[in-house]
Amino acid sequence: MSWFEVAPGAPFGAEELPYGIFTTPDSEVRRVGVAIGDQVLDLSEMAHSAGLEGEVFQQPTLNPLMSLGPEAWAEARHLLQALLTEESGREIVEPHLRPAGSVQLHLPIEVADYVDFYASEYHATNVGRIFRPGGAPLTPNWKHLPIGYHGRAGTVVPTGTPVVRPNGQRKAPDQEEPTFGPSRRLDIEAELGFVVGVGSTQGVPVGVDAFAEHVFGAVLLNDWSARDLQAWEYVPLGPFLGKSFATSISAWVLPLAALDAARCPLPPQEPQLLDYLRGEVSGYAIEVEVWINGYLVSTCPYASMYYSPAQMLAHLTSNGASLRTGDLFGSGTISGPAAEQRGSLLELTWNGSEPLLLGGEERTFLADGDEVVLRGRAPGGPNGGVIRLGEVSGRITPAPTS
Amino acid sequence: MSWFEVAPGAPFGAEELPYGIFTTPDSEVRRVGVAIGDQVLDLSEMAHSAGLEGEVFQQPTLNPLMSLGPEAWAEARHLLQALLTEESGREIVEPHLRPAGSVQLHLPIEVADYVDFYASEYHATNVGRIFRPGGAPLTPNWKHLPIGYHGRAGTVVPTGTPVVRPNGQRKAPDQEEPTFGPSRRLDIEAELGFVVGVGSTQGVPVGVDAFAEHVFGAVLLNDWSARDLQAWEYVPLGPFLGKSFATSISAWVLPLAALDAARCPLPPQEPQLLDYLRGEVSGYAIEVEVWINGYLVSTCPYASMYYSPAQMLAHLTSNGASLRTGDLFGSGTISGPAAEQRGSLLELTWNGSEPLLLGGEERTFLADGDEVVLRGRAPGGPNGGVIRLGEVSGRITPAPTS
Repeated sequence: MSWFEVAPGAPFGAEELPYGIFTTPDSEVRRVGVAIGDQVLDLSEMAHSAGLEGEVFQQPTLNPLMSLGPEAWAEARHLLQALLTEESGREIVEPHLRPAGSVQLHLPIEVADYVDFYASEYHATNVGRIFRPGGAPLTPNWKHLPIGYHGRAGTVVPTGTPVVRPNGQRKAPDQEEPTFGPSRRLDIEAELGFVVGVGSTQGVPVGVDAFAEHVFGAVLLNDWSARDLQAWEYVPLGPFLGKSFATSISAWVLPLAALDAARCPLPPQEPQLLDYLRGEVSGYAIEVEVWINGYLVSTCPYASMYYSPAQMLAHLTSNGASLRTGDLFGSGTISGPAAEQRGSLLELTWNGSEPLLLGGEERTFLADGDEVVLRGRAPGGPNGGVIRLGEVSGRITPAPTS
Repeated sequence: MSWFEVAPGAPFGAEELPYGIFTTPDSEVRRVGVAIGDQVLDLSEMAHSAGLEGEVFQQPTLNPLMSLGPEAWAEARHLLQALLTEESGREIVEPHLRPAGSVQLHLPIEVADYVDFYASEYHATNVGRIFRPGGAPLTPNWKHLPIGYHGRAGTVVPTGTPVVRPNGQRKAPDQEEPTFGPSRRLDIEAELGFVVGVGSTQGVPVGVDAFAEHVFGAVLLNDWSARDLQAWEYVPLGPFLGKSFATSISAWVLPLAALDAARCPLPPQEPQLLDYLRGEVSGYAIEVEVWINGYLVSTCPYASMYYSPAQMLAHLTSNGASLRTGDLFGSGTISGPAAEQRGSLLELTWNGSEPLLLGGEERTFLADGDEVVLRGRAPGGPNGGVIRLGEVSGRITPAPTS
């Protein structure tokens, strides 16, 4: 299919073409590249000879490219696919390929606002059972709207960034007074993140059917969570320091078009949603694997999410809140119906009561030195094949001593 | 004291010198100005002849100036005060004064992350009494940490921007199902906002004593709130669409140094706080007036706030969350002990049960067309006098019909 041979096991072929920001040992200028096999194609160099408008590729973030809108995104993608499949493209492309191992990847987007949703019914139900045993696991609003909240945009970091264990206040139910110190219940949340390319006007909602006019692509996202800090702080205004110390995303942003073949029906939504959340909505048949220290601990089915990303975006803007290029919203933890499909240690170890065995070691929550990697893949279209998302990893480093 | 005579009733003298961003009919280039009397001093023009490094004043936001740090802020302030008080300054300053009425003011900062706290004991107690009658008005964590949450940075707007009434989901307790439509309980929250100039490193907390090394200045802030949307959505992850449609701030940012004389002791903090929240902390003797349609409805004493801004900042970063230039944090609604000192209509009308009378008209929550203005002032130092904050206003426009 392509003059370019993707090495066996290398993640990205011509169907994916994820964008990222990279530097090289010979130039620390951040610029736009596309991952192809075990290479990175330097678009800042190649744009001119390929007939692409070059300016947006000579930028330190993807935001200028993302702001161009769906027609420009499609045009660039089609051109790149043609260059990589037609023999005539070889001489244009080859001079600008760099071995992936030789480049440094950076945060691909300048994050404007970061919102995190809570869109998995299985996750929300598990959390409700753990924290409110005996009560209704879902709050009364849960099946009427995709619950979400704002997180900290300034602490979104790219894959590979070490995650410092946070200090914070926590009070166990059996303690009289809170104490301050390193979180003892440091957790992950395996999520998909969606990146907004085209902004909107304050006061004007973005309907469910306008999703593809605004959203540029998807990343894998790990919403690191300090459960002990979160439990003590979150009533009544929601999570704050339990989440705000770090959120990791993949360095490669997969264009939405690469996920077209992965679209799938949503689970039934009952009771019927209000009109502003109804339309041509779909889920994605993406599976997200959670690896800790080299052990696969969970495979999370995005297809089981109750709300679609288009519904999340419509809800987010239904009050007139505007979008900006670089807005990022997470799906919330992806958990499926089975125990081995849960996207957080909170659920996988049932609040620490059922430790995981990783090789010979037990884990409830994360230990210093632990490395967590999320990997995602989706069906690749009529001819079979697999679409991969960029992986996101992070290793825990000890809390600072004060 | 000054060759420059501040007109009677004009808000700003040489003790205030708030910074803002403005344009003029003859130049739509956004640039930095200082308010003095009924004039705006164009620093982008004057910087060179005054011996100020000009680049940071020829910018569309205050962020570059704010990033310079406290020494540069003090230097610029002292130079401006000298120019305005010494006769020799007159010929340098006068050519660059513009009548305030002839300029257009803009959002003064590029907001990085926006956090809102909940630091008034009187406000939190009133809210607790209204929503949880019979229960403890304060949650168990309240006196141990300044509760806060992230808001939407992209919908922070400058004074004068019309505020579109949000649509949204709401379900009254006596309704079976939620409905979607214009908020019926649109409210204000009178707050102070603090603007971060100097960022910090992820993983490294900013102690209570480092407040003045990071915070550039203060604004008045109106955290518009749709109480019906908020009530239905906020369990368990906190406020989202009930707040995210708009947050208004004053166009003039008062440098922290202008508030030195307004520092005052905090109320007693019992039980004793954990070490990371203790230090040389103080409150501010600022009073914030709430005007609706020309009627003064409340005068809110900032001196009654339980937590100091330095404690809020230390808490925000205690988990290692980094700061960026342009971070904005609100104090939360400022309410004092007396009924006429409450900073929200929720409290002033006791959840709508005790309407206000504005002239001949009753108000529980805001009606379309209502204009809200917040004005703030503080003691001006040993010689008496008053320091004013920039006012923040907004008028409600009708919800869009869908």
